[in-house]
Amino acid sequence: MTGIRMTLDELRILARAKLIGAGLARDHAEAVAETMVAGERDGCASHGIYRLLVAVSSLARGVVVPDARPELAHPARALVRVDGGGGFAQLAFQTGKPALIEKAKANGIAALALNNVVHFAALWPEVEELAEAGLVALAFTPSHAWVAPAGGAEPVFGTNPIAFGWPRPDGPPFVFDFATSMVARGEIELHRRAGKPIPDDWGVDAQGQATTDPAAVLAGAMRTFGGHKGSALATMVELLAGPLIGDMTSRESIAWDDGRGGSPLGGELIVAIDPAGFLGDLLPGHQARAETMFDAITGQGARLPSARRYAARVRSLSQGVEIAPDLYRDVMALNG
Amino acid sequence: MTGIRMTLDELRILARAKLIGAGLARDHAEAVAETMVAGERDGCASHGIYRLLVAVSSLARGVVVPDARPELAHPARALVRVDGGGGFAQLAFQTGKPALIEKAKANGIAALALNNVVHFAALWPEVEELAEAGLVALAFTPSHAWVAPAGGAEPVFGTNPIAFGWPRPDGPPFVFDFATSMVARGEIELHRRAGKPIPDDWGVDAQGQATTDPAAVLAGAMRTFGGHKGSALATMVELLAGPLIGDMTSRESIAWDDGRGGSPLGGELIVAIDPAGFLGDLLPGHQARAETMFDAITGQGARLPSARRYAARVRSLSQGVEIAPDLYRDVMALNG
Repeated sequence: MTGIRMTLDELRILARAKLIGAGLARDHAEAVAETMVAGERDGCASHGIYRLLVAVSSLARGVVVPDARPELAHPARALVRVDGGGGFAQLAFQTGKPALIEKAKANGIAALALNNVVHFAALWPEVEELAEAGLVALAFTPSHAWVAPAGGAEPVFGTNPIAFGWPRPDGPPFVFDFATSMVARGEIELHRRAGKPIPDDWGVDAQGQATTDPAAVLAGAMRTFGGHKGSALATMVELLAGPLIGDMTSRESIAWDDGRGGSPLGGELIVAIDPAGFLGDLLPGHQARAETMFDAITGQGARLPSARRYAARVRSLSQGVEIAPDLYRDVMALNG
Repeated sequence: MTGIRMTLDELRILARAKLIGAGLARDHAEAVAETMVAGERDGCASHGIYRLLVAVSSLARGVVVPDARPELAHPARALVRVDGGGGFAQLAFQTGKPALIEKAKANGIAALALNNVVHFAALWPEVEELAEAGLVALAFTPSHAWVAPAGGAEPVFGTNPIAFGWPRPDGPPFVFDFATSMVARGEIELHRRAGKPIPDDWGVDAQGQATTDPAAVLAGAMRTFGGHKGSALATMVELLAGPLIGDMTSRESIAWDDGRGGSPLGGELIVAIDPAGFLGDLLPGHQARAETMFDAITGQGARLPSARRYAARVRSLSQGVEIAPDLYRDVMALNG
């Protein structure tokens, strides 16, 4: 069964309309639709138009303030804060981005805290936008406590992604964005729906025992990637994008959700560094050093983290995207 | 055969004397000795007094400038740079630390680049010192190209550690410091000396094949921890502490070493964030949130990354440390 082919503009119009139809304010709908179009465009099906179902569900469950007005503040010379007022993160990021860029360029380094925002999207669109503006960027966000620390079996961390962006002189930035959990939670969910077992190192059941049953892990705890190192990184993400910026940890956020099953409410920290800060006029020469390192990776047949997305992007920009029939039907059925 | 028991002061005096005897300037010797004493005190044998042999060897091989004068510069309002002049990293860090702390407190966030320094030590002493000063700190440094990217088999990255420090109101900071390689290079070296095989996921031989032979991996390439995620982090460390600060990548550094086998020359990036920047007077309440998360980790029997070091520290401060007879003999034999 072939999918429904759409241009990115058609997808954007559809996403906006469905979000507005679900009660989301127009400016939020535009910002949120943009990340879904970006995900679909880049071949990230799990962060594409499928997320319309997730976002509309969060709206229906009452965990999102649909018309929140993000408020910008300047707590210190190189810090920016946006209080998202309980709305989706995208508009809060767009509200803070110009000030973050300006402060990073003025001071060499700056940080943006998003507080009180609902997250359902990947972090790569944000670090990519900052890299497109010439900055090196790092982003962190906790989520809901689903992941046990190394050596334990009770959930403390969220899937706690870390994203990084590096501007490149010719072509799109070097970008990565990964969960510090062994896999994305959606991956386990997909196995559950398909009735397939999972590898026994993805998580533990509610009794703390390793299991290949995806439902048991969803009711128990996921593991971090990379053993105690991934666990240390997950702890860092909790701290940087939780207490450091006055926002919730993943345990606090899931408690706040109180079984509603919405996307996580909480904070996000973004650090931006201006390469010209340390390098001044020497920037191009040192950027070339980075390119030599990238060549040493790709020249031996290894792939850069963003390569697959960028290849999908080239295809989507010329040919549009294809939406699976089931997904298309579910999306069209949203709010009439 | 029992070891030689020494107080930390005795160890400090010994380390300084041996470094000065090897031709290192007094201020460098004092700074370098301090990190060795800290390593031995905290039970990190591989970063303790054993490193005297490493440092003296690097001096003998001519890869370190023994009387380098670190030069402090202020490239931007929130950036500090210290040119280490080819000397050991410790004195360069101590030279830049006060300005980093001051700039982080004045601006909310700041970064310190160490350029042109020789590294042989762990990063945790530095992030711990910054956390003791009330700051949240991140540190990164490349080394020599020994580690292949995920999907490849040729060395591009160093062991590229990432360290993080978080101040805690009662007691020593939360600190981690780990290599983004699967294991430390010294671990493979120890297996080689002992004639023991290594797990087949630690590295590949010069033909790119998985092997359990430690000598083959030392001549081939190590792997990153955590597959493509660790590889992404190793890439980030190269970029942040290499081209971003105008310094060498791990490939450039090992080429510069040119077979001499010294400790790596290159750069280091340290980012420091003042928790009071975002939080102001609300800091203690949010620090308590972090403590609640730490309790959720330790309360289920999982260990915080720094716990073992701090336990060893308590013992060493009261009982001194015990140096293995072989190591003691080798240290005493240094420069007469």
